[in-house]
Parts: sequence; structure tokens; C-alpha cells
Amino acid sequence: MIDPRTSIINSRLSGIKRIIAISSGKGGVGKSMVATAMALSFAKDGYRVGLFDLDFTGPSTHIILGIPKNLQPKEEKGLVPPIVDGLAYMSLVYFVRDNPAPMRGVDVSNALIELFSVTQWGELDLLIIDMPPGISDSVLDLVRLVKRIEFLIVTTPSMLAFEVVKKQLALLCELKLPIVGLVENMKMSDITAIPEETEKLGLKYLGEIQYDKKIEASIGNPEKLLYSDIGKALPQIKKAILDKKSVSKCRSKQ
Amino acid sequence: MIDPRTSIINSRLSGIKRIIAISSGKGGVGKSMVATAMALSFAKDGYRVGLFDLDFTGPSTHIILGIPKNLQPKEEKGLVPPIVDGLAYMSLVYFVRDNPAPMRGVDVSNALIELFSVTQWGELDLLIIDMPPGISDSVLDLVRLVKRIEFLIVTTPSMLAFEVVKKQLALLCELKLPIVGLVENMKMSDITAIPEETEKLGLKYLGEIQYDKKIEASIGNPEKLLYSDIGKALPQIKKAILDKKSVSKCRSKQ
Repeated sequence: MIDPRTSIINSRLSGIKRIIAISSGKGGVGKSMVATAMALSFAKDGYRVGLFDLDFTGPSTHIILGIPKNLQPKEEKGLVPPIVDGLAYMSLVYFVRDNPAPMRGVDVSNALIELFSVTQWGELDLLIIDMPPGISDSVLDLVRLVKRIEFLIVTTPSMLAFEVVKKQLALLCELKLPIVGLVENMKMSDITAIPEETEKLGLKYLGEIQYDKKIEASIGNPEKLLYSDIGKALPQIKKAILDKKSVSKCRSKQ
Repeated sequence: MIDPRTSIINSRLSGIKRIIAISSGKGGVGKSMVATAMALSFAKDGYRVGLFDLDFTGPSTHIILGIPKNLQPKEEKGLVPPIVDGLAYMSLVYFVRDNPAPMRGVDVSNALIELFSVTQWGELDLLIIDMPPGISDSVLDLVRLVKRIEFLIVTTPSMLAFEVVKKQLALLCELKLPIVGLVENMKMSDITAIPEETEKLGLKYLGEIQYDKKIEASIGNPEKLLYSDIGKALPQIKKAILDKKSVSKCRSKQ
């Protein structure tokens, strides 16, 4: 049987040209920072951009953007995302804010799918999603319903991060999900093995972002974020994303 | 009904004096590095120490220790952990190694509980557990069965990490689980709000660890790890752990 939510979700998303999920097998690699900066930067270029925080393990884009606590989506035949710094903004945090208990298994899947079903994004060039780390059951449930999601993977140069990311990539490839490519964040030294390793997997290395000691000071101040080392690295990465040919083909042998 | 596994597990663990779970609400804060260095350091001091990697989202202590791939626990009325660098060592990785698919919901709970049920630790002064990030269903299932687990929480100075960690602490407090205290890892500047914020929560600030640019070079080389900034910060933290009075009392208001 076809899940009836598939058609509702796909009609909700019909005005969106591309859906890019910023994801990482490993937590703490700066995924939310990259997702937020990228959304802001595309919006500044004149694209119509949505930012969708689905990281139920610890939503943080609202902290990065410095969104006032009383800002809420508007109910109108679904939920209309408020406009924040030029972005249509929606986050799980609106629904879990004061509850310390993380959501559980099937509740998470239902919440993610429900949010996709009710949000009125309207016309967008790009919807950037801040995904939960890893590929949990809930993420799998989601990509089964929303087949258009393209993954952009963030790693750090650390072997400990990249080993976990490689497993995630193998799984995404096995599931034949589209992967835009990989971004290397928090770089400190000049040369790492990540670009070469990425190419070996048949994936596109989209670019590197230097570790920026001052990034903490940009939290809550989106303008500063665009002038950080993340902001500086974005033009090349955005170009690779817009170049549709860049969607990577996994190597069969993994 | 009492879960029959409770008595099996508790008899398996009866020779262990203390069980310390190194945990963090947020991934990528250096939890596995701290857990491994701490286990090594206690062992060097003459304590009988076990290291138990239960981070199913991306086990990495075997990479940090540089354990050869063919090392396996010995089957003998259960599983006997091999001795690695003076530690009794057991990891989920023995059971998931070549499978890119992460384990799913109830499978994870069962795997964690099963590993606790079959592992023959024998007599130990300390069992250090590298926990998965956050408080997932599986972690909750586990702490329901093994009530003696004391939590040691790792954070970084970043507000984005600490906000997530605070939610985890609120949940641990609500569940009345013992918390040894909090370690601030990857410090770069001298003064942060973390010590004060920790005390406000009624929890013990155990100490800080400076960010060490050379830490990546110690991966696979345990001796180097002990001479890193993590190793240098450990004496104070170990002292606080051994001081049983240090187990924190959460403030009622959280």
C-alpha cells in the first residue's frame, strides 16, 4: 500500500525546486553552522530559501540565528514559516522547546513527517534541511516519503569523524539516495586525506572550510556568520551545489 | 514483572566496584578520547580497569587504541574481553564491524543489554563506558537494568554543545540517575561560563581540558594520548571521580 502521506507531502513541496539535506554521520562537525550559513548566503544572492531544522537530537539553528523565543509559525491551512533574516524558517524546536525528554523512536518519525505534511513553504528555489546526525530509523522513514532529498555531507578532517561518515556514505549509496557531495569543515592543517578519500568513493569533494576560532562569537549574529571562515568558503560550495551535474555517483564497490 | 535479565546482568557486574559512563548530549565533543584516556590513565595508576564501547552511532575507541582487526573476545561461558594496553576491552564494534547499516531501535537495546549479559569482566575497580551521544531509548532501557551506572558528562565550551548538554542533564536529574560531574573539553580561551553554569545546576565541575591541536596524531597510539593535553588534565578529574562525595546532587529546579 502506498503511504497516503506521500501525496500530501509531495503536493506541499511542489513549489520547491531543490531540497538539500545537510547531514553528517558524526555529531559536532558544524553541520548546523554550515546549514545556516549556506541558507543565509543563498538568500543574500537573491534565491528564495527555506531553512528547516529537523535535528531532534539538539536543534540549534534558532540559537545560531538568534531567533526571539516568541516567534512562531502562523497557522493558516497548515503552518506558515516566519521569515527570519530573509529565510522561511521552520524548526522542530517550536514543538519540543521546554521538554527535556528527547522524543522517542516512532514519535520522532511521526513528528518529522507531520512537519513535512503541514508546513506551507510556498515557492522556494532551495530548501536547506539541518538533519539529525547519522541515519536513524526516522531519517529513513522520512527519505522513503520524500524521495527528492539530496544529501550534502559534512565531515571534519579527523579520522574519528571521517570513519563514521564513510559508513553513512556507504548506507546512502546502498539506498541509492542522491548525494551532492562532501564538505570538509574545521580544517586546521593544509593537507588532509579527505579530498582523495572522497573521490575514491565516487563522490564530489565540494570544498573545505577553515576552522574559525571566532565562530563562537557569531552565534546569534547571522551577519557575522557570513563574514566568518564558513562564509568565505561558501561561494565555491554553493557553485558546486547549483551545478546539477555535481550530484555524485557512488562507486559500486564500497 | 521484573525483567529476568536484571539478575543475570547484576551478577555479571558483581565484581566491579564502580561503573562510570562517559556521556554527552552532543556528539563530537571528544567523549571517546576522554573515555579512552581516562581508562588508560587509571590503569597506569594500578587500578583494574575495563573499557566498554557502547557507542552504536559510531564506535571509535578501537581506532583510538589502534586495536588490530583480528583481536576478538574469547568465548568461555560468555565473552572474556581481551586485554589491550592494560585494559579489559570490549566493544560493540566486534559485532557490527563490516555492516554499514546502523542498528535499529529495539535491536540496539537488545544488543547493549545482551553485551552486558554475556561479558565476563571479572574483578574490576572501574568500568569506563563510552556511551552513545544523547539519551536514546536504548540508553534508557540500559539504565533501567543497570542501576549502578554513574554518568560523567563531557561538553565543549561552545554554547551550541552546552545547550544540548543542559537538556540531557535535566533528563538525567529527572530520572534521578547519579551524575559524577561535568568535564569541559576542547577549551581554547581562558574563561567560559561553563563552570558557573554547572554549579548553578547543582552539579560538580570536574575540570577542563585544553584543545590540543596534536591530538589527531595520537590516534592509534595510546602512549601519546597520555602525554596530550587530555592526559595532562586527567589527574584532577580522576581525583574528583575517586572522591565518592563528588557525586552531584541536581538542583530540584531545572
